[in-house]
Amino acid sequence: MSDSNTSYKKRGKDYPIKGGLRTLPGKYYHSQEIYGEELEKIFYQKWMLAGRGEEIPEAGDYKLFDIEDESVIITRTKSGDIAANFNVCRHRGTRMCVEAKGHFESENIQCPYHAWTYGLDGKLIASPMMQSLESFDKEAHHLHQANVHEWGGFIFVNLAQDPISFEDQMGTLIEKFKDWKLSELKIAHTIKYELECNWKLILQNYQECYHCPGVHPLLSKLTPFQSAIHDCNKGAVMGGYMKLEPGVKSMTMDGEPAGTPVCDVQGDDMRRVYYYSVFPNMLLTPHPDFVLFHHIMPRGNGAITNTCHWLYHPDVMADPDHKERLQSAVEFWDLTNKEDWAVCEQMQQGTKSRRFTRGTYSGQEDMLYALDQELLRVLGHKSPE
Amino acid sequence: MSDSNTSYKKRGKDYPIKGGLRTLPGKYYHSQEIYGEELEKIFYQKWMLAGRGEEIPEAGDYKLFDIEDESVIITRTKSGDIAANFNVCRHRGTRMCVEAKGHFESENIQCPYHAWTYGLDGKLIASPMMQSLESFDKEAHHLHQANVHEWGGFIFVNLAQDPISFEDQMGTLIEKFKDWKLSELKIAHTIKYELECNWKLILQNYQECYHCPGVHPLLSKLTPFQSAIHDCNKGAVMGGYMKLEPGVKSMTMDGEPAGTPVCDVQGDDMRRVYYYSVFPNMLLTPHPDFVLFHHIMPRGNGAITNTCHWLYHPDVMADPDHKERLQSAVEFWDLTNKEDWAVCEQMQQGTKSRRFTRGTYSGQEDMLYALDQELLRVLGHKSPE
Amino acid sequence: MSDSNTSYKKRGKDYPIKGGLRTLPGKYYHSQEIYGEELEKIFYQKWMLAGRGEEIPEAGDYKLFDIEDESVIITRTKSGDIAANFNVCRHRGTRMCVEAKGHFESENIQCPYHAWTYGLDGKLIASPMMQSLESFDKEAHHLHQANVHEWGGFIFVNLAQDPISFEDQMGTLIEKFKDWKLSELKIAHTIKYELECNWKLILQNYQECYHCPGVHPLLSKLTPFQSAIHDCNKGAVMGGYMKLEPGVKSMTMDGEPAGTPVCDVQGDDMRRVYYYSVFPNMLLTPHPDFVLFHHIMPRGNGAITNTCHWLYHPDVMADPDHKERLQSAVEFWDLTNKEDWAVCEQMQQGTKSRRFTRGTYSGQEDMLYALDQELLRVLGHKSPE
Repeated sequence: MSDSNTSYKKRGKDYPIKGGLRTLPGKYYHSQEIYGEELEKIFYQKWMLAGRGEEIPEAGDYKLFDIEDESVIITRTKSGDIAANFNVCRHRGTRMCVEAKGHFESENIQCPYHAWTYGLDGKLIASPMMQSLESFDKEAHHLHQANVHEWGGFIFVNLAQDPISFEDQMGTLIEKFKDWKLSELKIAHTIKYELECNWKLILQNYQECYHCPGVHPLLSKLTPFQSAIHDCNKGAVMGGYMKLEPGVKSMTMDGEPAGTPVCDVQGDDMRRVYYYSVFPNMLLTPHPDFVLFHHIMPRGNGAITNTCHWLYHPDVMADPDHKERLQSAVEFWDLTNKEDWAVCEQMQQGTKSRRFTRGTYSGQEDMLYALDQELLRVLGHKSPE
Repeated sequence: MSDSNTSYKKRGKDYPIKGGLRTLPGKYYHSQEIYGEELEKIFYQKWMLAGRGEEIPEAGDYKLFDIEDESVIITRTKSGDIAANFNVCRHRGTRMCVEAKGHFESENIQCPYHAWTYGLDGKLIASPMMQSLESFDKEAHHLHQANVHEWGGFIFVNLAQDPISFEDQMGTLIEKFKDWKLSELKIAHTIKYELECNWKLILQNYQECYHCPGVHPLLSKLTPFQSAIHDCNKGAVMGGYMKLEPGVKSMTMDGEPAGTPVCDVQGDDMRRVYYYSVFPNMLLTPHPDFVLFHHIMPRGNGAITNTCHWLYHPDVMADPDHKERLQSAVEFWDLTNKEDWAVCEQMQQGTKSRRFTRGTYSGQEDMLYALDQELLRVLGHKSPE
Repeated sequence: MSDSNTSYKKRGKDYPIKGGLRTLPGKYYHSQEIYGEELEKIFYQKWMLAGRGEEIPEAGDYKLFDIEDESVIITRTKSGDIAANFNVCRHRGTRMCVEAKGHFESENIQCPYHAWTYGLDGKLIASPMMQSLESFDKEAHHLHQANVHEWGGFIFVNLAQDPISFEDQMGTLIEKFKDWKLSELKIAHTIKYELECNWKLILQNYQECYHCPGVHPLLSKLTPFQSAIHDCNKGAVMGGYMKLEPGVKSMTMDGEPAGTPVCDVQGDDMRRVYYYSVFPNMLLTPHPDFVLFHHIMPRGNGAITNTCHWLYHPDVMADPDHKERLQSAVEFWDLTNKEDWAVCEQMQQGTKSRRFTRGTYSGQEDMLYALDQELLRVLGHKSPE
């Protein structure tokens, strides 16, 4: 068992179901001003999922991590480490790289405008004719560094000048899925979705299964919504698991396995699908036989790009029947995703109404209330009356 | 005669032609702030045209009435009445219906997200698992009602919580066109126009024929602009009529009839084309042999959707030559409409100039000045110096 | 020699190369508020390039000059002069002309809405039914005039009510290129570019060749960047020249001439390419054998339309080999332009970053610092700390 440090609780059994909880007011999904605050206090302060290390395997490989006005160049350095630097030349501010990913043939980063040149680690190497200027301080013109951290094969970036500790943000999640050996897994499939809704509606949608019977008939057959159990001991990371119905092996179109078990997964974990949201932009869904994750990037306050990846162990990907089983898992989650996106987009529309003040959570949505409270805490807002 | 309670006046005969009247400043067509005020004080307070009852003939039929952030579901209930409710689930605010019109097979309105279910009248019927919560007050979770009124077969909606009386808004118009038996008429043809101009420019365009000689050569042959006569006793509803030239029977490409007379229309009404604007979003144009109306919906402060409908009595629509005569009326008004839209769009552009302060009305445009005054009154603005 | 009144200076020879100069903060390229100030204090106050006289050769010809909310009708009058009037009917503000250029067949300007009619010079000729109004003052209803000036065949427009003198704005440039007989030249080719960057980045790009070795390999072969020499005695007009390499005759793909010398050009001017920016919207580049100019129009604070024209004397355009030589000059500058646009657009992106505070100019970019100072002076802003 991978979660000895977690105490799961079941609604109505371990604690009474609570009524009377209210949703946030609509402005939290529509106000340009609140979105601006979220950028400052959340997206520019927290560790954000930025991709997988496998995307930049070789020294000189890079990928960009772009959020609103910011762009960060994530590179594999010669030592094999990962570096992250703002995509802003220190000469006059030019964005140096424009392709989403690529390789620096010259093993350095050169600004196309005036040829200032930086190492893969961001240190200024050359700045034509500047050295002759008495006043030029080369050390003061290295690229602005962003913070970067690799965990379980995931790359996280933090844009703050004085970042919080990665471990503090991730809490118990760090050790939780050791049996899956996340860092050994590779991307087997990717689908990119463009949605017209606020980023928080996707996190909320992920944290309740009250909608499952109506929205997800197939998912509800594989994992009944009453099976949900959860822990919620760190506000920024929350989740739990649902139980596979007897005879069901995984979340696929036919309930049959999506592959052989992931690495050391065994025991109870073979009967569970875990759902963890890492505030603000990652949804991590370990299954017995693969790992799903969603990478959420806001585009303004009413739209997101949500990229969904299926992770497998390379050995399993070599199985002759891998393609077929992967296909069944992809089809299942693509179907389920689209069922979710439609209602999230409709919620975005409806909550704009002047008649929507606040909604009323059901007893199944206490984790959404907890998410709201975490949001208010981070923004430094008082709870609405 | 249908207008015994109206006292028509002719410029230059019943009252002197006035000079020196000035238009509104350009900001009334371009300011986002004034448009916001108009939404609050006009569109969200007045009765707005929302369609025709014939669009939802059967119990369970619905159409949406959408304006900016608001969406209202207009349904035919089992009793045959019309109900209007905000398209906002009381659980968490989801917009429940997205299709412009349709039919509720189940004879209720169900939110697609968590399956909360309302009657066609908006009363909450079912809310899964909520009833068990001590604190849940079902009566407090019916859909928010909008006000609805049917007149002459037209559906009007009012979004205010404490709406003004429909009769007060419509004034003498209520009894004016009894001979046309408006409620018996059906839509014979519809054209939807998307225009890039402020909604008020269309009302203004409709209330003067000073532009007719230059803009509408054909219309001017059928009804000379000097024939205009008007009443203007209720600010929100204003209009009058123009006289058909001798030998001209209706507003068609050839001046021949567009059909047999509408219901009980006879006498003087056989020689007149009436033009009434119902502030803020309806233009009603009864002819001897058909009724034209424009349904105006603002889309921001610089654009509108203007939907034009031709109404006939079903008996006339059964005439063998109906199609041909309808076609001539459609062609005539489509031509005339497009002539108007072009100049309205050009006025929208020109009035943005910093050099446009205010214009100078001709003596033929006193009704536009009255419209301006009504606007200022409703907004609570002082007349510009 | 055409520049007896100019004292050219060479960096590092006539004055020491300066270090420590900083760029403007990023808000000068991105703030909507600062752009609004620029419109008021620069674009609506300065003389702006509006085209060439040859575009409206005959009486009754017109072209529009549009900038943001303003539109000006530039006409050739019967006397052969050029008139400029706001494209705003004095009746109710309608934009009268919508085509970018054309001809007034009737030799007057008529509003399409209510047929008010103005002479080509903007004087009100007819306003139907207004004359009978006692209060109507015809003299007060002429079109609002814009200021217009022709120089060297270029049309300049000034939208201010009390404009600065054209001569003050142009300074020594007025007499500088007499040998080219600019007013006799004609447009031989035009390319219109739509760019996603602030208008000032194009002026800055034009005033330094520090970027040339990396960005323009071909241009750098024809005119080495160290050859740049400049005068800068009027803030609003600045520039200088670069020297053609021995054996190079002009800026073409092969360095061969682009035509025979322009009019009286001879001596030193045969070995130079001049580069002058006229703040805010003209770049003038006289070569020995043709004249290039860029016409810059802002579209919001992050985009411009930049139209590039190649001018030749009509006699040269009659040469049998003109097409081929023109083609080589067009190809060369189209290549060079696109090299510039890419880096300007990337600078626009990068300077949005919260980590971009201010950049550090190289010693080669002192003219950009002078441009910044002129901007601050005109806006009435203090130098950043």
